[in-house]
Amino acid sequence: MQKPVIGVMGPGDGATELEQRNAEALGNLIAQQGWVLLTGGRNVGVMAAANRGAKQANGLTIGVLPDRNLQQISEFVDVPIITDMGSARNNINVLSSAVIIACGLGAGTASEIALALKAQKPVVLLGHSPESQCFFKSLSSHPIFVANTPEEAITISRELLCQNPTAEP
Amino acid sequence: MQKPVIGVMGPGDGATELEQRNAEALGNLIAQQGWVLLTGGRNVGVMAAANRGAKQANGLTIGVLPDRNLQQISEFVDVPIITDMGSARNNINVLSSAVIIACGLGAGTASEIALALKAQKPVVLLGHSPESQCFFKSLSSHPIFVANTPEEAITISRELLCQNPTAEP
Amino acid sequence: MQKPVIGVMGPGDGATELEQRNAEALGNLIAQQGWVLLTGGRNVGVMAAANRGAKQANGLTIGVLPDRNLQQISEFVDVPIITDMGSARNNINVLSSAVIIACGLGAGTASEIALALKAQKPVVLLGHSPESQCFFKSLSSHPIFVANTPEEAITISRELLCQNPTAEP
Amino acid sequence: MQKPVIGVMGPGDGATELEQRNAEALGNLIAQQGWVLLTGGRNVGVMAAANRGAKQANGLTIGVLPDRNLQQISEFVDVPIITDMGSARNNINVLSSAVIIACGLGAGTASEIALALKAQKPVVLLGHSPESQCFFKSLSSHPIFVANTPEEAITISRELLCQNPTAEP
Repeated sequence: MQKPVIGVMGPGDGATELEQRNAEALGNLIAQQGWVLLTGGRNVGVMAAANRGAKQANGLTIGVLPDRNLQQISEFVDVPIITDMGSARNNINVLSSAVIIACGLGAGTASEIALALKAQKPVVLLGHSPESQCFFKSLSSHPIFVANTPEEAITISRELLCQNPTAEP
Repeated sequence: MQKPVIGVMGPGDGATELEQRNAEALGNLIAQQGWVLLTGGRNVGVMAAANRGAKQANGLTIGVLPDRNLQQISEFVDVPIITDMGSARNNINVLSSAVIIACGLGAGTASEIALALKAQKPVVLLGHSPESQCFFKSLSSHPIFVANTPEEAITISRELLCQNPTAEP
Repeated sequence: MQKPVIGVMGPGDGATELEQRNAEALGNLIAQQGWVLLTGGRNVGVMAAANRGAKQANGLTIGVLPDRNLQQISEFVDVPIITDMGSARNNINVLSSAVIIACGLGAGTASEIALALKAQKPVVLLGHSPESQCFFKSLSSHPIFVANTPEEAITISRELLCQNPTAEP
Repeated sequence: MQKPVIGVMGPGDGATELEQRNAEALGNLIAQQGWVLLTGGRNVGVMAAANRGAKQANGLTIGVLPDRNLQQISEFVDVPIITDMGSARNNINVLSSAVIIACGLGAGTASEIALALKAQKPVVLLGHSPESQCFFKSLSSHPIFVANTPEEAITISRELLCQNPTAEP
């Protein structure tokens, strides 16, 4: 019964226009595959855009929220998980996703990529500079994938899911 | 878009036949209302039975798991949230549910009822002894509800949701 | 090098005079044994009183705080551990203590006693009604201890530490 | 009564000889200042070396452990805090330290530096490549400090403590 859960992580308040457009496309494509979208659930930046995209394609959206402030929840989240544990919830985002797509980069996103590598979960970088790609590749012998477009990120995710649907090491 | 999330909490390995029958009926009725079922996600006791009941009525089921052991996940959970934080995840169960139905009683369930009272979330006790009802009522000035059947627990939950759909204080 | 860590748990704002006197005596006696005091760290109720008592006897005090609000930390806490995870930190209080002394009862304390039983950690109840004692004994086959005075709670703790210094099951 | 708490973070199993020598020197110098050392508490790599160094100078050492496995605790940890929440405990390490010194780099350390930047806590990098320094500086407008020796890391920490003893934003 379990459908694959794909996590889309990225900046909140600091997200660029391009990152938000990419996130919306990712959410849309994830929903079209019949996959579940998991994000940090807030109504800003990459999280909000990915959830909006997924709902446009009638997807199921899970938001793992850092606190109890209901005003912060994206209206496009179907099921909010209220952790009340601040940034420590980033580890839950990572462990609950079969594939983590990092759409852009902020301090919170960087912590999620690093936690994913630590947990040996597959990571796809979208819209990262060569320096950022190098940095994360240097952190772990675990492979990291690089996508240039949302479509490419979905293709890579599909291959990763074929090899290992739960992405547990 | 958000549908109400109802948490069903109760014993795992130590669950009685009656508790499991009640949990299965609760899951089924929750799904029939169009609500989302949230449990601790493991494939034993009240958690497993509630998820099975919900899937028989085509409901959506979320399981908030204590660890990364995928063998422990109930096959009737649609979306597993992997916390890897042991019993500390009990607080997430409680905060993410608009109403908490305690179906039977174990040490873990007792912690969830107490955490719900602490967070001022509404609790419905099903199948609790008079002593247990008294004990929890003595813990808090926040109201606690008592149901004698799964149907009654659903009726009470519906009224609570009418008054306060998110159950945030 | 590790000294035994004893957790004193109890009501915050709702603590009675007697509970606070007991907590202060407990903190004092714990420090006199050369043990470390662990509490929830806030500057109210049982937590504040226990830490004050321990510092009067030059003990070491650890406070495991629910949030980042520094105004809430008891001035008698030597080392604040800032969890920012609300009541989910109650499980850390319990797991980090070799013995948990519940001095009085509130919803938070009840969650800590239940989490301790779930984790098979030894619990000593001080100032609990017969109903509360019965309730917690009914939750688990794991033994629960009852003390009538702070001195008795310390005697029981010393025996428990002799049998099993780390109190891991 | 509170003494400053300095967190030393760094690789576990993958730590190099130099990183371990630096960590031991850091622990020693931290203890000499009368500060408290906080680490991830395990008996490997930077954590073990920092704790050993601190105890040689009679310091107080706190270890925030990821799980309940007592065999993993460094013998030089005075007070183990047992979180049982895996890498989510990295956020507690960061929030509980007035200054975070990153001694070397692994995936876990990278998550701690990123979480520290997210929480606006001061970070000192020791033994990091120019690429790593650039990467972390690009993540946040919050200042990051670079030290070339353990002594320099301590000098920077002392200045940071003078400006803001609790390092809360």
